[in-house]
Amino acid sequence: MLDALFKPKAVAIIGASKNPLSIGHIVTQNLLDHGYKGPIYPINPKETEIQGLNAYPSILDVPGEVDLVNISIKNTIVPKIIEQCGEKGVKFAIVHTAGFKEIGEEGLALEREMVKVGREHGVRIYGPNSQGVQNSDPAVSLYANFTFVPMTPGTVSILAQSGGVGEVLKIPLHKLGMGLRMYASFGNECDVSMNEILEHFGNDDGANVIMLQVETFKDPQGFLEVASRITRRKPILALKAGRTKEGAVAVSSHTGSLMDQDTMADAMFEKAGVLRFDNQDEMTKAAIAFASQPPPSGSKVAIVTNTGGPGILALDEAILGGLELAELTEATQNQLRENLLPMASVKNPVDVIATATPEHYGFTVETLFKDPGVDMVLVNFITAPFVDLEGIARRLKEAAEVANKPAVVVVMTIEKWYGLMQAIRDSGTPVYDFPEDGAKALLAMARYGRVRAGKVEPAPELDVDGNRVASILGRYEGKDTFLPQAAVFEILESYGIHSSRTVAVKEAPDLAAAAAETGFPCVLKVDAASVVHKSDAGGVVLNLEDGAALEEAFGGMCEQFGGEDVGFVVQAQKPEGREVILGTKAQEGLRPLIMFGLGGIFVEAMKDVVFRLSPLSANEAVAMLHSIKGLPVLTGTRGMPAVDMDGLAGVLVRLSRLAADFPVIEEMDLNPVFVYPQGTPPVAVDARLRVKG
Amino acid sequence: MLDALFKPKAVAIIGASKNPLSIGHIVTQNLLDHGYKGPIYPINPKETEIQGLNAYPSILDVPGEVDLVNISIKNTIVPKIIEQCGEKGVKFAIVHTAGFKEIGEEGLALEREMVKVGREHGVRIYGPNSQGVQNSDPAVSLYANFTFVPMTPGTVSILAQSGGVGEVLKIPLHKLGMGLRMYASFGNECDVSMNEILEHFGNDDGANVIMLQVETFKDPQGFLEVASRITRRKPILALKAGRTKEGAVAVSSHTGSLMDQDTMADAMFEKAGVLRFDNQDEMTKAAIAFASQPPPSGSKVAIVTNTGGPGILALDEAILGGLELAELTEATQNQLRENLLPMASVKNPVDVIATATPEHYGFTVETLFKDPGVDMVLVNFITAPFVDLEGIARRLKEAAEVANKPAVVVVMTIEKWYGLMQAIRDSGTPVYDFPEDGAKALLAMARYGRVRAGKVEPAPELDVDGNRVASILGRYEGKDTFLPQAAVFEILESYGIHSSRTVAVKEAPDLAAAAAETGFPCVLKVDAASVVHKSDAGGVVLNLEDGAALEEAFGGMCEQFGGEDVGFVVQAQKPEGREVILGTKAQEGLRPLIMFGLGGIFVEAMKDVVFRLSPLSANEAVAMLHSIKGLPVLTGTRGMPAVDMDGLAGVLVRLSRLAADFPVIEEMDLNPVFVYPQGTPPVAVDARLRVKG
Repeated sequence: MLDALFKPKAVAIIGASKNPLSIGHIVTQNLLDHGYKGPIYPINPKETEIQGLNAYPSILDVPGEVDLVNISIKNTIVPKIIEQCGEKGVKFAIVHTAGFKEIGEEGLALEREMVKVGREHGVRIYGPNSQGVQNSDPAVSLYANFTFVPMTPGTVSILAQSGGVGEVLKIPLHKLGMGLRMYASFGNECDVSMNEILEHFGNDDGANVIMLQVETFKDPQGFLEVASRITRRKPILALKAGRTKEGAVAVSSHTGSLMDQDTMADAMFEKAGVLRFDNQDEMTKAAIAFASQPPPSGSKVAIVTNTGGPGILALDEAILGGLELAELTEATQNQLRENLLPMASVKNPVDVIATATPEHYGFTVETLFKDPGVDMVLVNFITAPFVDLEGIARRLKEAAEVANKPAVVVVMTIEKWYGLMQAIRDSGTPVYDFPEDGAKALLAMARYGRVRAGKVEPAPELDVDGNRVASILGRYEGKDTFLPQAAVFEILESYGIHSSRTVAVKEAPDLAAAAAETGFPCVLKVDAASVVHKSDAGGVVLNLEDGAALEEAFGGMCEQFGGEDVGFVVQAQKPEGREVILGTKAQEGLRPLIMFGLGGIFVEAMKDVVFRLSPLSANEAVAMLHSIKGLPVLTGTRGMPAVDMDGLAGVLVRLSRLAADFPVIEEMDLNPVFVYPQGTPPVAVDARLRVKG
Repeated sequence: MLDALFKPKAVAIIGASKNPLSIGHIVTQNLLDHGYKGPIYPINPKETEIQGLNAYPSILDVPGEVDLVNISIKNTIVPKIIEQCGEKGVKFAIVHTAGFKEIGEEGLALEREMVKVGREHGVRIYGPNSQGVQNSDPAVSLYANFTFVPMTPGTVSILAQSGGVGEVLKIPLHKLGMGLRMYASFGNECDVSMNEILEHFGNDDGANVIMLQVETFKDPQGFLEVASRITRRKPILALKAGRTKEGAVAVSSHTGSLMDQDTMADAMFEKAGVLRFDNQDEMTKAAIAFASQPPPSGSKVAIVTNTGGPGILALDEAILGGLELAELTEATQNQLRENLLPMASVKNPVDVIATATPEHYGFTVETLFKDPGVDMVLVNFITAPFVDLEGIARRLKEAAEVANKPAVVVVMTIEKWYGLMQAIRDSGTPVYDFPEDGAKALLAMARYGRVRAGKVEPAPELDVDGNRVASILGRYEGKDTFLPQAAVFEILESYGIHSSRTVAVKEAPDLAAAAAETGFPCVLKVDAASVVHKSDAGGVVLNLEDGAALEEAFGGMCEQFGGEDVGFVVQAQKPEGREVILGTKAQEGLRPLIMFGLGGIFVEAMKDVVFRLSPLSANEAVAMLHSIKGLPVLTGTRGMPAVDMDGLAGVLVRLSRLAADFPVIEEMDLNPVFVYPQGTPPVAVDARLRVKG
């Protein structure tokens, strides 16, 4: 769909100029310098020749067909020009010009006008306030962008919301001579969307990996779907700006859009199998590995080194990040022992020692690749000045070339021996400067290996009573309110989530019948939308052992709480279990988030909660339970048995389905849910549900 | 003391050779290439000339004085050669040769022999199994080392236990043309110690910062003292190998020493004000900043950028690491608004926008430096191709040069404009490639700023009864045992740590008198060294309301527990408070570690514990309390008041003093201590104390 954008047959530059600091001039120069394969038409009413090319007064004067234009003229005349482009049959217009949505109301109106004109005249708009696009495919060689990092062909594609960050992402690839495949920084995203470009990059067989930098998601659900499809085939590495509150404010002020919750981004990335990185350095170093290496089938790493210390730097980083140190078979160890120097260490990390020859290095790497317990290999090589360095580089290259497991090489050296690094790199093996970098690259590859190996399981079909829920929710249509307790529990029950037996009471005479249903001991609670923290407000009385106690408590509560909306409930008192909290929250443009955490002091003091996107599969629910820090509280520590984890995962699955099925539910809180050892199902003791009108 | 090692008047190379891959040859060449200022004497019985220098058959044949020798001959003849060196008056011998302690018993014996000979003949031994030393001071220019990274003068000194890591640490400095001051990698540390070298580097006015890489501490207490003195004047940055269990094993197998607890290293670094880093990349990037910049006086950062996205990368990294975003004064904002481009953002981060001129950049940086709320400045500069780049670099250089606050500059560019980076760097302002790197450097500087600003407070004088403790402990002299409960509580009481009233009982008739002291309700506990987890073993009965209940419980416990060492205690039952755990553990070669954590499920499930070195000052105790993740459990969350933090800090101070005063105490556990809101002092409810014979 975006073929004419990334593979145009001809490009016109509207805003071409002889001024070398102008955008039009720079774009034209980039196209020329990179040998764009089609004709380039500078458009400028005052010139007949620009940068050695024939210039034309308007797009309508261009002799041949044009499918892409780059526009860098004044904002207010852009819509008019788009109309001309439509007449000419132009398919895509990259609008570099700023002064649209990002400057406020006036700019937004202009932007809408431009989109409208584009739609009417069949011109799709890229931008505005954008850099441009690049495609290094030698058949195209398009640099329709005003940036400065030179382009050479490679297998990494880059999609960046921030043009500045996009440029920063290109720099390390350029420095390593790795090149890139396609590039896009899409500005205000008024028409051509990030998701469309991402899909285009995903379908491009020339790209092995996609680097994505994003600040706000315009269409989160669309992103989720596109990204989920792509990550089955190739990795998407993501850098999300605004990790901190301060960062989020800065994002919001410079993009003019409201900030997306960072939590939502994490949940989306998790669900789509996108690998998130904390900074561009780690992301680009991972991309360098993905550019040529297959993902590993497990997480066991073997390390080869010629000096102990740097080997341990790599080891610490790898293990802290979650890799395992491969245990080498006896056969492997014996082979190494027979073939390496006497002082060498044949356990993992294998220390071939500083005086190792090329053959020692080559044999070691080959032997490790053959060990079935090794999923990936990291080779550390410090260029000790007393050995045959060229020979070692050659043998490492040979050994890595034939492997079907990923390998990275770390060469610690100075400019004198950069040729050795390049020789290894040219053979398709990633080379890093420092041990930790190599370890981080392998960590990223193992993360992606897990994404690829993970079965994508749909959320299960459930035996639920959706009609009953619809009918209850229907009573509150158009209202923005909390539901009464009894209604909330009935909704939960309809989805198979059990709660403590709860009966609404209005007056004292109702108490006896209620208690007959709940039994003793029971609990009396106030039930009012206006009382949010019931316990704190004195709206919960526990341990009511008989009718008299219940009546007394009811009397006290009636005195304390009054008003139209106030009701009360009598609830069966459950034996105390371990407390957990479950919740859901609707998301603009996306399905609801579901939250899980340990209750009580844990959530308050430790913020030990995790979020995922609904609906959950059984696998996802189990993974969610296992990702809290306080997991031993559930799985049992000294003297405490494990809780019914499957039962709890089931509640998560059902709650997530409920939230996903009824978008009118703005938020739910099940706080607490008591969980018990195997044999006793979890039970919700208190729950809130708010609908949005 | 180490002057003759780092500033020798003459160097002899024992093991000099014409073989260019030999250690002797490489060391000689390094000395020659770097223009060592004194005479160099190759020693080789078979040659008369090596590398253009007169060679001598033995050190005794050298015509002039020699104060340093580099030795790379066979291990077994080294002691003999050391003897000759002594005759010649050599002061230091760098022994490169391996095959000593690191290969086992035989090597250890040889190493001891060598040290003995050295002592007898007045030759101090550096190494063995070591690289060597370097001193870039132009008056010396000593490269007495066989490594390959060229040396130029700088202000960073490097001390590395692993020669491989030492070399890796030099590489980034070399690449940036920063040079280094002194370097040492000391191998087996048989005589000249890491602490001596560290002290030497600390006293060297030519070094602004010291990078330290360490795997095992031979003399931890000595390190603590030396490092504490140095960090008052200049930063020590440390990389400790073996952060993981796997890494620790690898350290242990390649150094031949037992691994140091990582926890101990952290506690030592904390106490000494040493900044620990997780990897060499972050450490060297910090060193680059310390090489020329003063530490900031606070943690408020201002960020300048010419594109939004990279500004946010820097911001996120800075805030996540603990810096604050400076709030600019109205005056600052007004000045910026008047002088920058209309689209510029004058709030922090200040976005001067991509078309900013040199004057815009310069004015902004100067104005930010003048704002009293700004402690440090990070400047992001992406080399947009449409502005006067040289001018911007020049103005940034000018602005940063005159500041007395730290600044770092990030230049995002390609090789074409490396000259701009170098120009800024040459003016003494650190330049980084990426925004996150600049932010990390500032984070490290702010950490050191806090070290420098922190008052070093001695542990306070306490009113304690040391004689009473000595007398109790005296009863167990030479034994390796747990003490009875009553004795433990008496010891704690002697140091002002209160516990629940506890009376030892042996037989049923003792119960009444005991209960008269404790009152009811009381607790009955078994008291035996052999019963470690009393509760789990059924050795604790709570809630004894009267004499009958106590007697019954006693009967049951007597049936359950028997044996010589078994006793029982009756204890006053305290109202339940919040539970915390305090502990101490003796450390080989160092004062005891003290541990603090939240009790119960928190310590078991969350491992939320912190360690420091005893004795604690009041400040340190308070900082310790505040460094647990579950702090809100103590300071109070919804509906829960704060506990008596000062009282609890006091217990920590007293316990740490007790452990420090009596090294015979191998470990103590106060588990739990109940803490209460202000007004009720903390009370130890259970305690264990083990002495070591």
